[in-house]
Amino acid sequence: MTAPAPPSVAGARSLVEPVLRDAVARLDPLTARVAGYHLGWSDPYGRPATPGGKALRPALAILSARAAGADVGSCLPAAAAVELVHAFSLLHDDIMDGDRVRRHRPSAWTVFGRSAAMLAGDALLVLAGELLLEQGTRGGVWAARGLAAATQRLIAGQASDLEFEGRPEVSLEECRRMSADKTGSLLACSCSIGAMVAEGPAHLVAALAAFGAQAGLAFQLADDLLGIWGAPEVTGKPVLADLRARKKSLPVVAAITSGTTAGERLAKLLAQPDPLSEPELAEAARLVEEAGGRAWAEAEAEHRLDAAERQLAALDLPRGVREEFGEIIRFIASRDH
Amino acid sequence: MTAPAPPSVAGARSLVEPVLRDAVARLDPLTARVAGYHLGWSDPYGRPATPGGKALRPALAILSARAAGADVGSCLPAAAAVELVHAFSLLHDDIMDGDRVRRHRPSAWTVFGRSAAMLAGDALLVLAGELLLEQGTRGGVWAARGLAAATQRLIAGQASDLEFEGRPEVSLEECRRMSADKTGSLLACSCSIGAMVAEGPAHLVAALAAFGAQAGLAFQLADDLLGIWGAPEVTGKPVLADLRARKKSLPVVAAITSGTTAGERLAKLLAQPDPLSEPELAEAARLVEEAGGRAWAEAEAEHRLDAAERQLAALDLPRGVREEFGEIIRFIASRDH
Repeated sequence: MTAPAPPSVAGARSLVEPVLRDAVARLDPLTARVAGYHLGWSDPYGRPATPGGKALRPALAILSARAAGADVGSCLPAAAAVELVHAFSLLHDDIMDGDRVRRHRPSAWTVFGRSAAMLAGDALLVLAGELLLEQGTRGGVWAARGLAAATQRLIAGQASDLEFEGRPEVSLEECRRMSADKTGSLLACSCSIGAMVAEGPAHLVAALAAFGAQAGLAFQLADDLLGIWGAPEVTGKPVLADLRARKKSLPVVAAITSGTTAGERLAKLLAQPDPLSEPELAEAARLVEEAGGRAWAEAEAEHRLDAAERQLAALDLPRGVREEFGEIIRFIASRDH
Repeated sequence: MTAPAPPSVAGARSLVEPVLRDAVARLDPLTARVAGYHLGWSDPYGRPATPGGKALRPALAILSARAAGADVGSCLPAAAAVELVHAFSLLHDDIMDGDRVRRHRPSAWTVFGRSAAMLAGDALLVLAGELLLEQGTRGGVWAARGLAAATQRLIAGQASDLEFEGRPEVSLEECRRMSADKTGSLLACSCSIGAMVAEGPAHLVAALAAFGAQAGLAFQLADDLLGIWGAPEVTGKPVLADLRARKKSLPVVAAITSGTTAGERLAKLLAQPDPLSEPELAEAARLVEEAGGRAWAEAEAEHRLDAAERQLAALDLPRGVREEFGEIIRFIASRDH
């Protein structure tokens, strides 16, 4: 079942896309072509395509500007900047993970080669900072520093994820911290960057970031659940993809560290050196469930959403902002899209 | 023959290294380890090593601050930032080019894997911007914007270099533009960033950047000559490395487009699909020389150095600054180090 995105997400996309297109058009032709393909604007030959990507992070950035009482127009470069950092991280992650499919299409590195995709990622990362500094305001500088700090945490999370692959044991706490870095930090920045650009009060920026961090964990938990039980037509990835790659995702680590017999059997299964057969993959998924990893992740996602909403409830926000924030994070965490 | 680096380069290294070490220490442990190895501070196991890298770009950055009458201390983060962008580009370039040796040691990706080296490059790129924005001054923002623009040109140059590999014909003008982007832009930024941080006059910043751009081309020409005729013990690369990789470097393109018989024979030799044998590589080097590519590159490098020095001669600079700039660019362009 595919739920439609909230109207604010579609609205954000139509507002931000022209800013993104103008920004990418400044890059050298090869890099612009790779970026345009990755962002869903064109096919491998540079011909126009029907864009498929959502604009969840830009929608959150726009709401955060509204939360600070600012008008939407002034925060569009910031909304574009968080999307550019997201695009950078996906371009590089797909190369690192060897993922050949992204949003139901061949990933950029499979079309243009690893080198061109790496360069495009580098260029989008730099472009994000440029859009913010071009504002020529103190708020723009604040936002650029906030986005850079979030990007460092994103990189640190990806580095931990890599490091976990080569390690026999990972604690649930380590896994949670990795997810907070890898997914939570950019979502926290997206939920507060508009208020930075608008030079809103520091306590508002901090509360919005805390809201985004909680929402980010809920998002990662939903993503981890989809990585095991998601239907390929929804995820755009093969069935049981994360178990196949032996990712130490949150439900898997929760299962392994559960102290149950099923958890022990799962650990043993995932530790064997040979590639897992299809029946072994199905068995692994069953063991995650039996050890309580699935139920824990579902409950934990719900707790995180509640905590996120409590963060917002304590704030005095302009009409409609709280509701739209709530709609988007519920949509993100449902991930049946 | 190895000429010693000018004293200002050694001085810059001892000033900048503590700033670089403090900055890298903030990164996550895996990324910090890769960066520490790449920067020559440690061996693959994280144990201290004798640093081998020069600090040419930081030395230029410090001189550019002195050119604007600023004290050296205030520009050290900027001097570190240009070195970080240089380190980022080498980390990523070595992966893209498959280069296994860097400064006489195994390159970072061969030691830590491609993914960890990519992430370390990403982290150093972001860190460079952070160091500049942390200044909290208008000059810091100016420098951050200047460095971002230079990085975009560096990326565009690398993208052109990639694109040239798959093309039968490249004009000398295209090749020159690629070198100006890939090497000239960061050198131009290094030669002017200290004056930006010091909020010096715009005409001084522009003149210093123009000086650096000319010096950068001289540097690239010297590097291209070494890529063909450099001794492996000097370059740290196999003999005839650039011809082996069929790089469309400036002397090669000058030879191919010379309209001579030797140039035509060179073009034919480099266009054949099979890997070149050792006698064919030696023949290719001979043909570059016979077609006038070597003499052209040597003369062109000299012209660029003269043009660079003319840029400086027109400026009213504090005592010693012009001479030290001249020493460094002559040293860079000699590249017998």
